[in-house]
Amino acid sequence: MNIEMIHAAAARLKGHVRHTPLLSSPFLDEIAGRRVLVKSECLQHSGSFKFRGAWSALSALAESQRKQGVIAFSSGNHAQGVALAARLHDTSAVIVMPSDAPALKITNTRAYGAEVVLYDRATESREDIGDALAGERGLTLIKPYDEPEVIAGQASVGLEIAQQAANMGIDQADVLVCTGGGGLTAGVALALEADAPGLRVRTCEPDGFDDVARSLISGRIERNARTSGNICDAIITPQPGALTFPIMQRLCGPGLTVGEEDAQRAMALAFSRLKIVVEPGGAVALAAALFRPDQIAGETVICVASGGNVDPAFFAQTLTEFG
Amino acid sequence: MNIEMIHAAAARLKGHVRHTPLLSSPFLDEIAGRRVLVKSECLQHSGSFKFRGAWSALSALAESQRKQGVIAFSSGNHAQGVALAARLHDTSAVIVMPSDAPALKITNTRAYGAEVVLYDRATESREDIGDALAGERGLTLIKPYDEPEVIAGQASVGLEIAQQAANMGIDQADVLVCTGGGGLTAGVALALEADAPGLRVRTCEPDGFDDVARSLISGRIERNARTSGNICDAIITPQPGALTFPIMQRLCGPGLTVGEEDAQRAMALAFSRLKIVVEPGGAVALAAALFRPDQIAGETVICVASGGNVDPAFFAQTLTEFG
Repeated sequence: MNIEMIHAAAARLKGHVRHTPLLSSPFLDEIAGRRVLVKSECLQHSGSFKFRGAWSALSALAESQRKQGVIAFSSGNHAQGVALAARLHDTSAVIVMPSDAPALKITNTRAYGAEVVLYDRATESREDIGDALAGERGLTLIKPYDEPEVIAGQASVGLEIAQQAANMGIDQADVLVCTGGGGLTAGVALALEADAPGLRVRTCEPDGFDDVARSLISGRIERNARTSGNICDAIITPQPGALTFPIMQRLCGPGLTVGEEDAQRAMALAFSRLKIVVEPGGAVALAAALFRPDQIAGETVICVASGGNVDPAFFAQTLTEFG
Repeated sequence: MNIEMIHAAAARLKGHVRHTPLLSSPFLDEIAGRRVLVKSECLQHSGSFKFRGAWSALSALAESQRKQGVIAFSSGNHAQGVALAARLHDTSAVIVMPSDAPALKITNTRAYGAEVVLYDRATESREDIGDALAGERGLTLIKPYDEPEVIAGQASVGLEIAQQAANMGIDQADVLVCTGGGGLTAGVALALEADAPGLRVRTCEPDGFDDVARSLISGRIERNARTSGNICDAIITPQPGALTFPIMQRLCGPGLTVGEEDAQRAMALAFSRLKIVVEPGGAVALAAALFRPDQIAGETVICVASGGNVDPAFFAQTLTEFG
């Protein structure tokens, strides 16, 4: 991983990904006690930043390999990003999803044109199914985060933040990123290291699923005790990635964590003050900016709202309770 | 009104208004049967395009006049736009609002720093109250639409659409605009006449409140039978403006209308497919694009999502029923 790879990915993404706006509201500034800028990746194609990494990985393949098709394991945003990027590259995607994944996510992934292969979490191994399919059909596996071209694609979020901050005269800020496996976080950190060294990335995770925050403290990869049972499903992973962790260790931290209710409060405020739809896992960075002000320094905080793929019923309930 | 005034307003707005994105989704294209592009003015400062006209009007005043303060009558988006623009110009705003206006809108207008003067719709005249206050304090009235500098400010939406369409190679399209008094509609039409003559503005109104559509047919100003009783409150006005109508008559039409349920369906689709929050009156153009395909020609339709200031409870109910 280096900045040349990131620039090469950005060149391939140009004209295909959305340059997402950096939104703000005086009401949010007042809550946080400082200026809050929100990089709205929920407005990205497929509803999350994952489209960037998927496009980067697909566009980096040799034409002959790409036309054989790609495969991914995911029940969520990576599935939709890969499915849409494959369709726009005029190739096929197989997405291996657990049969108990939310119906909406299965429907959406199919609607983007992907072939969805369901498996039983209890009795089947998705890796075995994937390996068999990949072997039979010559498919290329697109990993969700521990893959250099994926990290390079997500890094384009950081290049845009660096440019947007410079246009506003900002050269010092904490940049809060919602962190799962660390692909977005590591990518943004590398881009900022090169283009805006005064902007420092802080990881944001749900309380109780803070594998990255703990790993940054201990200096080695720590695991979560559980990988389910939190509304922030998009960013719940067993542990930081083997490629992403060393990058985060060098450039990021200290990590921040927030509770589920604070994530929902941030969703309701993003609704009322920014007019954007953010999913729970995409709202933890904004939640940290608003509700952990004493753990942040400086006059400006930039946070990434990383995705907006949330069920209408859950969103309605969040507005009813926290709106 | 001429294009020079519009360019002068755009120069004053530069760096102060958001250049809002033109969003899209393959799911919406499929429903509409053509490419749908959504100019997301709900992401504008203060949650609607009204901030543009307010900024234009305030910035056009002489410094000595501006520092005396401004006044506006409005229970909604114009109130918030004027209040925020006044605050950012470091001057004061008085907003005359009916005492039965939604509590949230009163709270927001105050939170932007405006002085809210409430009146009783049944027994008091807002004009008398406004005239008295304006006289006493030397305040300048900022009208919501029938004011050249306000129209020139709203026109910047059209300049941006022209540029964004050109970047995508689009030179022919219907441009659907949510129409109340016609300030946004007339402004966009003038900008497109100059910069993108192949883009034609069509007005969009709620069923039963189609004063502009009927006026475009009859060739003279027609009135609505009622001015309340529809969820699209932001665009319910008694009749087209004296300044805006001749512009719309020359450049716009034929008008489109949609029912309340279609507006809510469009809100739910903007939520799930674009991840933006649109209020009922801001959703009628998208509703027309999606649900009146036989009344639209061509491969591409551009619609303005003009505002997103909607109560959480109403939004939650819309998602529950139509999500």
